[in-house]
Amino acid sequence: MKTAIFPGSFDPLTNGHLNIIKRTARLFDKLIVAVATNTSKRALFTPAEKVTLIKQAVAGLENVTVILTTGLTVDLFRKQNATVLVRGLRDETDYRYERQIAAMNHQLENKVETIFLLADPNNSYVASSMIKEIAKMHGDVSKFVPENVNQALQAKFR
Amino acid sequence: MKTAIFPGSFDPLTNGHLNIIKRTARLFDKLIVAVATNTSKRALFTPAEKVTLIKQAVAGLENVTVILTTGLTVDLFRKQNATVLVRGLRDETDYRYERQIAAMNHQLENKVETIFLLADPNNSYVASSMIKEIAKMHGDVSKFVPENVNQALQAKFR
Amino acid sequence: MKTAIFPGSFDPLTNGHLNIIKRTARLFDKLIVAVATNTSKRALFTPAEKVTLIKQAVAGLENVTVILTTGLTVDLFRKQNATVLVRGLRDETDYRYERQIAAMNHQLENKVETIFLLADPNNSYVASSMIKEIAKMHGDVSKFVPENVNQALQAKFR
Amino acid sequence: MKTAIFPGSFDPLTNGHLNIIKRTARLFDKLIVAVATNTSKRALFTPAEKVTLIKQAVAGLENVTVILTTGLTVDLFRKQNATVLVRGLRDETDYRYERQIAAMNHQLENKVETIFLLADPNNSYVASSMIKEIAKMHGDVSKFVPENVNQALQAKFR
Amino acid sequence: MKTAIFPGSFDPLTNGHLNIIKRTARLFDKLIVAVATNTSKRALFTPAEKVTLIKQAVAGLENVTVILTTGLTVDLFRKQNATVLVRGLRDETDYRYERQIAAMNHQLENKVETIFLLADPNNSYVASSMIKEIAKMHGDVSKFVPENVNQALQAKFR
Amino acid sequence: MKTAIFPGSFDPLTNGHLNIIKRTARLFDKLIVAVATNTSKRALFTPAEKVTLIKQAVAGLENVTVILTTGLTVDLFRKQNATVLVRGLRDETDYRYERQIAAMNHQLENKVETIFLLADPNNSYVASSMIKEIAKMHGDVSKFVPENVNQALQAKFR
Repeated sequence: MKTAIFPGSFDPLTNGHLNIIKRTARLFDKLIVAVATNTSKRALFTPAEKVTLIKQAVAGLENVTVILTTGLTVDLFRKQNATVLVRGLRDETDYRYERQIAAMNHQLENKVETIFLLADPNNSYVASSMIKEIAKMHGDVSKFVPENVNQALQAKFR
Repeated sequence: MKTAIFPGSFDPLTNGHLNIIKRTARLFDKLIVAVATNTSKRALFTPAEKVTLIKQAVAGLENVTVILTTGLTVDLFRKQNATVLVRGLRDETDYRYERQIAAMNHQLENKVETIFLLADPNNSYVASSMIKEIAKMHGDVSKFVPENVNQALQAKFR
Repeated sequence: MKTAIFPGSFDPLTNGHLNIIKRTARLFDKLIVAVATNTSKRALFTPAEKVTLIKQAVAGLENVTVILTTGLTVDLFRKQNATVLVRGLRDETDYRYERQIAAMNHQLENKVETIFLLADPNNSYVASSMIKEIAKMHGDVSKFVPENVNQALQAKFR
Repeated sequence: MKTAIFPGSFDPLTNGHLNIIKRTARLFDKLIVAVATNTSKRALFTPAEKVTLIKQAVAGLENVTVILTTGLTVDLFRKQNATVLVRGLRDETDYRYERQIAAMNHQLENKVETIFLLADPNNSYVASSMIKEIAKMHGDVSKFVPENVNQALQAKFR
Repeated sequence: MKTAIFPGSFDPLTNGHLNIIKRTARLFDKLIVAVATNTSKRALFTPAEKVTLIKQAVAGLENVTVILTTGLTVDLFRKQNATVLVRGLRDETDYRYERQIAAMNHQLENKVETIFLLADPNNSYVASSMIKEIAKMHGDVSKFVPENVNQALQAKFR
Repeated sequence: MKTAIFPGSFDPLTNGHLNIIKRTARLFDKLIVAVATNTSKRALFTPAEKVTLIKQAVAGLENVTVILTTGLTVDLFRKQNATVLVRGLRDETDYRYERQIAAMNHQLENKVETIFLLADPNNSYVASSMIKEIAKMHGDVSKFVPENVNQALQAKFR
């Protein structure tokens, strides 16, 4: 059985993330969406909120599970007996950052393999950070996130 | 009448900004320089100071006005009945960031069009953030900013 | 009156080009689409064919004219008493190439100004060269070019 | 059963290609290395020679097959009932080019998915074109290609 | 006598930095490694700790000295009567940032010249910031830093 | 004695090349400008013409010599007992290409070191290929090349 892990901070889940999840779920037997809790960036949503939002959004996808994770991604990889890490690429900035992470992970544990899917052109400019900025100013972000996330964002900035 | 808006944080105005302003003023009937007050970055100058510095620097340009703005750029665009947003591109980092913003703005309000002018090669490395770093250490930034901004920076770090 | 020139080789016109033409036509009083005949690249379509294809595709746009041009773009700019050159940016490769051209044109004639519009995300991967490769292998390119260009491509590779 | 296809011109196979093949073979049930014969670039090796060289180099990999292909990659994808296309990324230039191809393929046939593996840092500068230039001047390319390819190159330029 | 200066924040020294130091020491008569103390980023190590760690790591290199520096790099350049600044390039992000700094330094003092060495491919993904993240989670960073730095990191996060 | 080699095709020498030559000549005891004759690109000027044009342009620089070279750059490096290769960087495209060449050269002969100087901002868009295109159409290239090269170009395209 081939297991893929999609690690991220998901603060919050966007349509871009969801698109990567759906496409990856078709490629491997099992997909674990892993919400990192150890990130240094200050988050808008709590780890538990993030997991709930993602679980709602991926409800129809049989082989997708959502978990919280602390510590190094390579340790999660070993523990889950995973085959690959999966990451999306929106642009060259993503590419360069991900290249650095992937190379480091491979050095830390050389069984770690990372594959990349390209963001759908329509989502290639969608970033959690910008969505939060717009939502904060009460702009309409319904085109960029799943409906449950849209409502959660409105609740945060009401 | 075609109206262009040049939005930015201008903390402070540089020769690079001023060059874009002068060139854009020749392309459209009216140019509004819009100083954003809602930015998350901590600013050195207050919004009112920024507006004053820009007004002094563009004094000779008949069709240029300088305003303060809060809220989303797309709302400003609608309110001003504008034709285009204008942004300068110094390098690929600018290009990628601006592409993201422009696509988001277009999604939020599909009448919003953004055009880009290339920074003059001599200004392509001039960034407000670096100018502030240098001024803070009492370096000479007179080559990078208009004279009134130079004096304002010296006053800030005296 | 403000006149914009959109110079290119258009071998052939794509939906990406057409999108730039439509958006630019709203920004200026007049738009001249200038088909370059002096390019070193070997073309599939003759200059006259290119002009015809573009004229058909822009038929509904009142302020757009299509011309053939030889010689330097800066000479065309002077002769047409133009305000700006317009170019589309699909990605960083475009950005870098266009930056070089724009800087050179500005050096050759310092009244020459170039503005850039971003390709619509859905057209950001559409390139004349690839379309020709696909059409040559009898692939379906109807999503990437106007219908009249699609038929012209099929006729070329029948 | 999940089938991956690694299409390319392989003129000739490099250590970079071989590394991608080995890593991909671990991710999917079956890997088809597809040598394109319809490329516009003039090749040093004939399609048959390329296939032979790759077959020798992947001899130990049970789930890897090597085929010749003509026509569009999306047609091959359908015919082989494949799950994914696989491509390696050495740098941003690769990224941008591959992004364009992947988006076009997805438009031509929306079941086509492409995944990317990063070149091993030690192979990130290895390009078939440079290897041929060096071999032509009788430089030692044994660090960049499998031994059988090294000998084939020496034979070509003897 | 030709003197090179390698300025940086070195928080902490990595194998990537050390590789640049060794290679530069062969190119010029004297190499000064200058630890900047005026950086706005919050550092893990004190300036004195950084200097000690670098001095230990470069112990065998006769023509290398390590100093603390405050103020502008161009002032250090003048004071040391230096010939060049030296910086390493790992990727395009480095390239773009360094280009900006180098252009600014040259404007501030036009005798300042900056040369660039490429990071060894094996170190091209090694960044102080990531190393600190990994060490903080008790990951093994011994492949990325000299042994004395490895021990210092472990001591910081014990 | 430290010897630098600046290899290139110089078809023809531009102000950008000349600027790199002048700056490098100050950094090392000796600078050899090496005109490659083995390039696959079709040249406008013969190798002998290129050498003559460069010799005229560097006439005042005592420690600069100009030679023709065939074969691999690494062989030239060994034969000249050189310390470094020198290359200019105008933009990211240059950076990526040069990184590949430098890595390959280092693999072929691990004593080979390459350093990079940044193009002067005013020359960052100057490319031999474009200059030839403009000169061919009788445009004025006197801002981009030394005067003797300007005359040679005019003679070629008279």
